[in-house]
Amino acid sequence: MKEETWKTAISKVEPNKLLLRGYRIDDLMGRINFAQGVFLAIKGELPRDEEAKMLDAMLVSSVDHGVTPPSCLAARTLASTGASLNAALAGGILAISRHHGGAIEDSMRVFQEAIRRKGEMNKTQGEMASIIVKEYREKHKRLPGFGHRIHTRDPRTAKLFQIASDLGIAGQYVGMAKAIGDAIEKSSGKSLPINVDGAIAALLCEMEFPPELANAFFIMARIPGLVAHVYEEQTRMKPMRHINSKDHEYDGIPERDL
Amino acid sequence: MKEETWKTAISKVEPNKLLLRGYRIDDLMGRINFAQGVFLAIKGELPRDEEAKMLDAMLVSSVDHGVTPPSCLAARTLASTGASLNAALAGGILAISRHHGGAIEDSMRVFQEAIRRKGEMNKTQGEMASIIVKEYREKHKRLPGFGHRIHTRDPRTAKLFQIASDLGIAGQYVGMAKAIGDAIEKSSGKSLPINVDGAIAALLCEMEFPPELANAFFIMARIPGLVAHVYEEQTRMKPMRHINSKDHEYDGIPERDL
Amino acid sequence: MKEETWKTAISKVEPNKLLLRGYRIDDLMGRINFAQGVFLAIKGELPRDEEAKMLDAMLVSSVDHGVTPPSCLAARTLASTGASLNAALAGGILAISRHHGGAIEDSMRVFQEAIRRKGEMNKTQGEMASIIVKEYREKHKRLPGFGHRIHTRDPRTAKLFQIASDLGIAGQYVGMAKAIGDAIEKSSGKSLPINVDGAIAALLCEMEFPPELANAFFIMARIPGLVAHVYEEQTRMKPMRHINSKDHEYDGIPERDL
Amino acid sequence: MKEETWKTAISKVEPNKLLLRGYRIDDLMGRINFAQGVFLAIKGELPRDEEAKMLDAMLVSSVDHGVTPPSCLAARTLASTGASLNAALAGGILAISRHHGGAIEDSMRVFQEAIRRKGEMNKTQGEMASIIVKEYREKHKRLPGFGHRIHTRDPRTAKLFQIASDLGIAGQYVGMAKAIGDAIEKSSGKSLPINVDGAIAALLCEMEFPPELANAFFIMARIPGLVAHVYEEQTRMKPMRHINSKDHEYDGIPERDL
Repeated sequence: MKEETWKTAISKVEPNKLLLRGYRIDDLMGRINFAQGVFLAIKGELPRDEEAKMLDAMLVSSVDHGVTPPSCLAARTLASTGASLNAALAGGILAISRHHGGAIEDSMRVFQEAIRRKGEMNKTQGEMASIIVKEYREKHKRLPGFGHRIHTRDPRTAKLFQIASDLGIAGQYVGMAKAIGDAIEKSSGKSLPINVDGAIAALLCEMEFPPELANAFFIMARIPGLVAHVYEEQTRMKPMRHINSKDHEYDGIPERDL
Repeated sequence: MKEETWKTAISKVEPNKLLLRGYRIDDLMGRINFAQGVFLAIKGELPRDEEAKMLDAMLVSSVDHGVTPPSCLAARTLASTGASLNAALAGGILAISRHHGGAIEDSMRVFQEAIRRKGEMNKTQGEMASIIVKEYREKHKRLPGFGHRIHTRDPRTAKLFQIASDLGIAGQYVGMAKAIGDAIEKSSGKSLPINVDGAIAALLCEMEFPPELANAFFIMARIPGLVAHVYEEQTRMKPMRHINSKDHEYDGIPERDL
Repeated sequence: MKEETWKTAISKVEPNKLLLRGYRIDDLMGRINFAQGVFLAIKGELPRDEEAKMLDAMLVSSVDHGVTPPSCLAARTLASTGASLNAALAGGILAISRHHGGAIEDSMRVFQEAIRRKGEMNKTQGEMASIIVKEYREKHKRLPGFGHRIHTRDPRTAKLFQIASDLGIAGQYVGMAKAIGDAIEKSSGKSLPINVDGAIAALLCEMEFPPELANAFFIMARIPGLVAHVYEEQTRMKPMRHINSKDHEYDGIPERDL
Repeated sequence: MKEETWKTAISKVEPNKLLLRGYRIDDLMGRINFAQGVFLAIKGELPRDEEAKMLDAMLVSSVDHGVTPPSCLAARTLASTGASLNAALAGGILAISRHHGGAIEDSMRVFQEAIRRKGEMNKTQGEMASIIVKEYREKHKRLPGFGHRIHTRDPRTAKLFQIASDLGIAGQYVGMAKAIGDAIEKSSGKSLPINVDGAIAALLCEMEFPPELANAFFIMARIPGLVAHVYEEQTRMKPMRHINSKDHEYDGIPERDL
């Protein structure tokens, strides 16, 4: 063994054999879906059925959010210069940072700390939520994962929590997220509901993903949306156009039932 | 309507309502899986069941391929400098270009041209395949999508074609891909089997995706693998280490049955 | 010598000694300026004095061009999300591609081909220029390096050519560039003057840089401008703002003499 | 003035006129060199002659450092996949982060804090340096900007300080940097000399650049080196090769005098 030998536990590649977390890749193909593959690659084990369904719903919820998010604008701006698809996607991903998607990680840390302190301080969920809301108020800081620049009642949040409840995934973190939302309303007199970042954060906590990987889930979910935008830019628009995100109009398929 | 109004057909975002290709996102959540969401975002319509299963298998087949691909090395090299997760992923994606994944697009163009010329020239599949192999031989060019630096019989290829056959997806493009493989062997006396890039190319042709988007499918599939590698680098390795891809050892879960 | 030993001719690094293209770096420091270092790193030899001055003028000409170029918008969009400086610069660089800066490389190829064919066909400069303009007209293609979306008489072009003339750098490529500009005007009746991309292309040809590196000079020149924009975005603007490049106003130092 | 009008103080672009920080760009061309343009773009004012020379020396010092830095390996890895020049450079830049170049910013903050506290606590330079070294020792943290994985006496550091001294740039920050180096040696009994990151940090403090921009100077300096490496990879190497940074050999121009 040479000095610089290093270890990896993700895949084993041999001629004509490829293991992902121990499973032969050709055994996995046709038997697990992509979201299960995502879970396996990152966590090292296959998800339970409920977790797989939860992850699918989370990823579907964030596939796209129109043309105004900076990840979309960065990707379209690059596509407009004739940049290749992968370069435009790379630029889009670089936009998914502190203020755009970053709330998921921040929110996970808030919920994890809240649950930890609730135990240490021997408080109820509601008491702990009130303490945290009060602390943020006193520091004049906004709690990450609450409020949205467009939606007052984000349809994705309600659906995520309903699915989590139906699947039995919703536990102490979802409970704490809701309790914090209630405490904000009580404290400020205004409704500042949990947003999709906060909901995803609570669910990633329930599924025991580390906060350091929060961003990965948003990125994986949003890539197909970015692909669609880059392709639309390349095929429908003139290169080097002036892109003003406010002056757009939807001309796609009208609202329809599934 | 102001001069610069531009059109988008992907998503419609209104307060408390979000449509993806016409469907309310909260209707989709819990009822379609992530691969179906990928298909819907990019194609504009939901896949048939067989297409959804085919896409799932394709994406699962390419989730990871160990530490030697340049996308993995680029992402790990960046992670090793303390770059953030999204920066490391962006770097990994930039590696998925002409010589790494690019064969999927090239291969799609070969298969599409072969089918087109087969019709125009009124040839059989086997005749057309022989003509193309001969043309490449004469130009001393390699046919994209055939042969692999590690695998002589890539387990992913066989499984993809088997699933495609079971689902009724395998049609003229898969046929042509196999015919070209046969023609190469006949012409050179050596087996240079279709590889996973070639197999995915044939299947993307069957599902009528444009070759310009071939790269997107490899990128979407590989991102979870890159996430796992970046996280492993950040949590198991020292920063700024010397990374020699040859001096690695697998120490993950031993081979296991699904 | 192990099998995989590979060669590099750029720098030699030993403990307490660092050679750049053979010169001790500490000998270079204080005796050459940055543009000379750029030339040395890329070409392998120090520039003649005239070349160094020409390169300085070229790089200075392209340091910035306000907020409307997509490289600036991509970098500012990323900065607005809280992305780090290097991520925002990486995004800006990804925008410097086919339609944004790419004309320099295309233009170099036009000028090089024009000079080559002029020799082969035994034509005068004017005759060759007319032939090329006619060929582009017939193919309904625009000649890269001529015309600008804002400037009809780009102050940078005139100055670059004047400096090139004063320094004795202007030779057959600058001559051909001007001849093509004249031929366009004669052929179309409209003035479509050479732009800064075309002028830089002609000068890079004169200094014998390969067209493959054209993009590098634009990138190197523009990075300081992008740094200034990212920093301005980070320090003067709110995160996640709506960026419409048309709705900006200059509030910097008023026009002044050097 | 529309609601969303925003301000920029960097460049003013009008038809046929382009101001950089108030100066007509064509007035600057031929009269300032590139490093002066860098300073002007970022600081808003032209440098004094001594500052311009100092900046030139700093940028030249960091143009390249061979093939082992991760920025070089990331850029070469991308180039090896057939990625375009700008994509390879973007990948290289993403590597210039916390552990690679990041010490410049950290070091600037140490020196600025040291000078501030020296005033507040009414200490001598040597006393303040000893306090800081002691604090880092007690926290078992390494002082950024001291020590190098290859060089024990970095030729760039000595030359930067000599030039700074000759130009009258070296002031309290350079003094503090040296005092901290002395205090480390006194405290640990081992020489852990200031490295090139620390030296550049002290000089950026002297020239009153903000620490947030430290990374920009390393990036600007290193881009020409990365360009040379990407071009060498594209022109001398086979695509998709195995890149082991340790197995390289220098075959460039032998050591020579300027």
